[in-house]
Amino acid sequence: MMRGAVIHGPRDVRFEERADPKIEQPNDVVISMSATCVCGSDLWPYRGANPIDHPTPMGHEYCGIVEEVGSAVRSVKPGQFVIGSFFASDNTCPHCRAGYQTSCQHRELVGDAQAPFLRVPLADGTLVPTPERPSDDLVPSLLTVSDVMGTGWFAADAAGVKPGMTVAVVGDGAVGLLAVLSAKYKGAERIIAMSRHPSRQKLAREFGATDIVTERGDDGVARIRGLTKGVGADAVLECVGTQEAMQQAIHSTRPGGTVGYVGVPHGVQLDGQALFFAHVRLFGGPAPVRRYLAELIDLVWKGKISPGKVFDLKLPLAQVAEGYRAMDERRAIKAFLQP
Amino acid sequence: MMRGAVIHGPRDVRFEERADPKIEQPNDVVISMSATCVCGSDLWPYRGANPIDHPTPMGHEYCGIVEEVGSAVRSVKPGQFVIGSFFASDNTCPHCRAGYQTSCQHRELVGDAQAPFLRVPLADGTLVPTPERPSDDLVPSLLTVSDVMGTGWFAADAAGVKPGMTVAVVGDGAVGLLAVLSAKYKGAERIIAMSRHPSRQKLAREFGATDIVTERGDDGVARIRGLTKGVGADAVLECVGTQEAMQQAIHSTRPGGTVGYVGVPHGVQLDGQALFFAHVRLFGGPAPVRRYLAELIDLVWKGKISPGKVFDLKLPLAQVAEGYRAMDERRAIKAFLQP
Repeated sequence: MMRGAVIHGPRDVRFEERADPKIEQPNDVVISMSATCVCGSDLWPYRGANPIDHPTPMGHEYCGIVEEVGSAVRSVKPGQFVIGSFFASDNTCPHCRAGYQTSCQHRELVGDAQAPFLRVPLADGTLVPTPERPSDDLVPSLLTVSDVMGTGWFAADAAGVKPGMTVAVVGDGAVGLLAVLSAKYKGAERIIAMSRHPSRQKLAREFGATDIVTERGDDGVARIRGLTKGVGADAVLECVGTQEAMQQAIHSTRPGGTVGYVGVPHGVQLDGQALFFAHVRLFGGPAPVRRYLAELIDLVWKGKISPGKVFDLKLPLAQVAEGYRAMDERRAIKAFLQP
Repeated sequence: MMRGAVIHGPRDVRFEERADPKIEQPNDVVISMSATCVCGSDLWPYRGANPIDHPTPMGHEYCGIVEEVGSAVRSVKPGQFVIGSFFASDNTCPHCRAGYQTSCQHRELVGDAQAPFLRVPLADGTLVPTPERPSDDLVPSLLTVSDVMGTGWFAADAAGVKPGMTVAVVGDGAVGLLAVLSAKYKGAERIIAMSRHPSRQKLAREFGATDIVTERGDDGVARIRGLTKGVGADAVLECVGTQEAMQQAIHSTRPGGTVGYVGVPHGVQLDGQALFFAHVRLFGGPAPVRRYLAELIDLVWKGKISPGKVFDLKLPLAQVAEGYRAMDERRAIKAFLQP
């Protein structure tokens, strides 16, 4: 028996015994975890915003070494270092072929990654190997590609960020910060980060933010309008998922501009007529990380981006509960965990 | 004194005396109306869905001959045949330059067009003249460019319709029918029109529809999924504005696809989390008709499109109330009115 993270109720994450993963289907792979982490979206159940009916394994960000492959697996082999998305996908159905693997017709949530071993289904459609085994210093950045980096990238992609644009980012969690990095990499000229935490502001600037706005709600909208001569941002990346954040994003966007939203909405209701007259494009959802894996691995591998900087707390996996606490209390941006 | 349409309350449109329009600002133009019409959106107040506080002139679709110009007007002159949008725009502000003239920072609603004469403000930024005076048979199609044709075109544009796509159209009013025409002109391979009225189905087919779906709501969604091998349409054009129509549009769209919505939303509420997991892009609003005027006038002038076919009832302006009645009772698709 291995030990991994299990949530029992709000603010009750335990490191406890779980069955060892094994090959169940011919398309499965079992990996040994090189590193995993706590996601901002893990805080929804942790804070009681999602119901917890029974003790539930946690974790959906992962990278590691292939230990065992099912009989049908063709694209990866034991010993390789691999990264996958939080949704396993066949990568062959029409939705996958269109680039929306998180809506794969056969998708399966990979939800028990805060553990030393992990079963990954649909391995051929899900996992991408690195060119060779990475050095230790690359592992944090490679791990982010599994979710937060890919999610920040999707926010910028969904919002159609292009060279020269003015982009605002709502949310200064790891996804928001990596949305800043993504907007910068895609050529945004001006990047307004909304943050009131000095350490996050600093990282936002390091990732490419040109302006910091500390105000929220209507005041935050007014500041963005002020910074853009009353016009609004060309693209706004919403990386929180609350009603306030979504409204702030919509009202900060110029007519004809786009809100890319990747914060899982909780209690968000949109008034159709207000959205109509805002004249704003809205696109988001679960980031199709699989589409971006090869490109983002390459950027990390070549040192062109260093998204691993979002990890400001490194813990042994056994202390996973402290990782949740530190993020819940906003003492840490993102907790990195190693078995 | 001239006589024009004034709404006094639900289902109470009267043809009565109104002050003659005159030049009030240096940028104004006064036109004599060649033709005007009743819009689907005029039915919202007619049916009591919008409050009517006091007797209100009606009509926002117009084309006609320039009679008088203000001292600052440069781009049109007396005697020209001109067409404009339902929102007058300066066509120079940042929103106009970005192509969203219906969000012009100085926009003014042109709301009293069901009359023999009309004052158009911001004339240089609003009106586009035809190459010469049109023959009578072109007038209906030119009139549609003022709103319904431009609005159907925007639905297809906002939804990113491209050659080869499968497009579904929700709504078989004049805008929905012209959304079919627009999708066809933009190269859609398959166009599914949702309609249960034989005369409208016929016109939809004439405009390019390849399939007709008569079911609504979940049954309509199931039919579209059935027609697309379970995938959904690449683009769905929502041309109604009700909750049912919007939900039908969202659920009929493939992940990564787009809903272009141009029906003015009435009572539409969108659940953020459902939209997130639908993975659907949403874009709409008041159609920036001004952006399309020159192109659409050209297509009509050269006979490449004949959107005027949506007028299946032609009346003298004095019978405007019958135009409303016929559309309200769905006896007519759209009523054409001439002074």
